[in-house]
Amino acid sequence: MKIELASSYGFCYGVKRAINIAEQHRNSFTYGPLIHNKDEINRLKEGFNIGLIEKIEDIKNDNAVVIRTHGIPKNELALLKNQENKIIDATCPYVTTPQNIVAKMSAEGYSVVIFGDKKHPEIKGVVSYASDKNHAFVVLEPQELDALPLKNKVALVSQTTKKPEDFLKVVNRLILTHKEVRVFNTICNATFENQDAASELAKRADIMIVIGGRHSSNSKMLHSICEQECKESYLIENETELNANWFNDKKLCGISAGASTPDWIIQNVVNKIQEINH
Amino acid sequence: MKIELASSYGFCYGVKRAINIAEQHRNSFTYGPLIHNKDEINRLKEGFNIGLIEKIEDIKNDNAVVIRTHGIPKNELALLKNQENKIIDATCPYVTTPQNIVAKMSAEGYSVVIFGDKKHPEIKGVVSYASDKNHAFVVLEPQELDALPLKNKVALVSQTTKKPEDFLKVVNRLILTHKEVRVFNTICNATFENQDAASELAKRADIMIVIGGRHSSNSKMLHSICEQECKESYLIENETELNANWFNDKKLCGISAGASTPDWIIQNVVNKIQEINH
Repeated sequence: MKIELASSYGFCYGVKRAINIAEQHRNSFTYGPLIHNKDEINRLKEGFNIGLIEKIEDIKNDNAVVIRTHGIPKNELALLKNQENKIIDATCPYVTTPQNIVAKMSAEGYSVVIFGDKKHPEIKGVVSYASDKNHAFVVLEPQELDALPLKNKVALVSQTTKKPEDFLKVVNRLILTHKEVRVFNTICNATFENQDAASELAKRADIMIVIGGRHSSNSKMLHSICEQECKESYLIENETELNANWFNDKKLCGISAGASTPDWIIQNVVNKIQEINH
Repeated sequence: MKIELASSYGFCYGVKRAINIAEQHRNSFTYGPLIHNKDEINRLKEGFNIGLIEKIEDIKNDNAVVIRTHGIPKNELALLKNQENKIIDATCPYVTTPQNIVAKMSAEGYSVVIFGDKKHPEIKGVVSYASDKNHAFVVLEPQELDALPLKNKVALVSQTTKKPEDFLKVVNRLILTHKEVRVFNTICNATFENQDAASELAKRADIMIVIGGRHSSNSKMLHSICEQECKESYLIENETELNANWFNDKKLCGISAGASTPDWIIQNVVNKIQEINH
C-alpha cells in the first residue's frame, strides 16, 4: 500500500517556519507564545530549552528573544533592539506583509483600515506600523466604518485568518463612499489550501486518515470533506487509535492533518501505518 | 407662489460645462456629437454655427475642434495637435479623471481593468490612455475577468455612468484572486443627485413640475419619485403643457428636469409659470 500526504496539511507555512527557526536557537525565549499550540510550546521547552516570557518588562538584556509568528508592536521591537537583545524574528511572512503595507500606505498619506480583531496579537502588531496614528483604524464590522474620519484615499488590509467574504463586506462599504480604495488581500489561504488538498487526495485514495483533535473544528471540517470523496475516512488524534484491519486490500492511503497538529504526531502516524503494512 | 428649482436637475455638470465652452467658440466644430442630445446640438449649430464632424479625416488643419464631453482617444488628440488644430477641450472632468488614472497606473506597472462598454466613446478614450496596451482591459461582466492575463497588481476604474452595485461585482471578483486591487470609484452620481434633490424638494413643495421626455426613463423615474412625496406632480415636455388651474392656492412650486432636458426648455417653463402667477 502506498502512503501519500496531502499536498498541504497540518501547520501552515508560517508556523512550520517559526518552529524551525526556534529549534535553531536553543536557550532563547519567545516573547508571548510562539504559536497557538501548547503541546508544541512544551516540546520546544523540553527539547530546546526555549522559554516563554509573557511581559516585556521581564525580558533581560542578555536574553535572545524569538519574535512570535503573529509579530509584535513596532515600539516593543524597538525597545528590545534598544536593550540590545538578540532578536530572532519568526514573524510569519504573511504577517510581515500587512505590517509593511500599513507602514508604506500611512507614510504615503492614505487613511489605513485594518479588518480584524483589535485584541488579536497580529492586529496589535500590524496597526502599530502606521506612522500616522490618527488615520489608522481597526474594524471588525462594516458599519464601524461610518463613524471613522477617513480621507478620500483609503488603504485596506485584512487580518490573515479572516474569511474572504467578510473582508469583501468591508471593501464594498468603503468603495461606495471613497474615491480611491487600495485593497490589499492579505488573507492567508492556508486553511482553504489544506481543505482543497485533502479533497483532491481523498478522490484518489482508498482510505483517508485525518489527524487532529476531536474537538478541533478545522480537523472535523477536514474529515467531513474527506468523507464526501472517499468511502473510508477516519479522524484520529494520534497513532494509538489506528486499527490494522482498516488497511486490508487498500492501494492508496491518504493523510491530512488539522492546522494545530504538529508534524511529529503526523510522523508517528505514518510510521505506525508503515509498520502495520509490513 | 414661490418657484424653486431642485438643488440638482437636468443636464449634469459636465454637459452644462461643455455647452458653455462650446458657446464661447462660435464657428468651431465638434469631433463627434458634443453631448447625447440632438435638440441641443441643433441649437448650437443654429445659434453659434458649431458644426459636427464625424470622421477625423474630415477635420481640416484650420478647424477649431471642440473635444466632446466623453473625451476622445489619446492618439486622435495627438493627431489633431500635430495638425495644429486649435483644440477646445470640453471633456467632462469626471472623464478626465479615469483617463489620468489609467495613464498613471499603467505607467506604474499595474494591470488596468476598465468596467464599461468597449463601444462607448468614453471608454474608447479612457482605455487609450494605458501606456501598456497588453495590460489594459475593458470588461462588462465579472466573469470576463477570469480569462484575462492580469498581474497581481490590478487597478480598476469604471465608466462614469455605470451602476455602483455592478461595479462592486467586478471589484469582488478581483479581490479574491489578486494581491492588490487599487479601486478608483469613478462613477458619477449625477443621476442619483437629481433624484435625491427632487425627492427633497417634493417633500416641501405643494406642486412639482418635472420637465422631460415622456419616453425618457430617467424623467419618468424622477416623476415617480416626486409623486411619492408630493400630492400634485406633473411630467411635462415643455411649457405648452402647463395648466393655469394647477397653481391655484399653491405656496411652493418645485421644479426638476430629466438628464436630457436642456436649460432653455426649463427656463421657458419657469417663465410661463411666473406669467400664470401674475
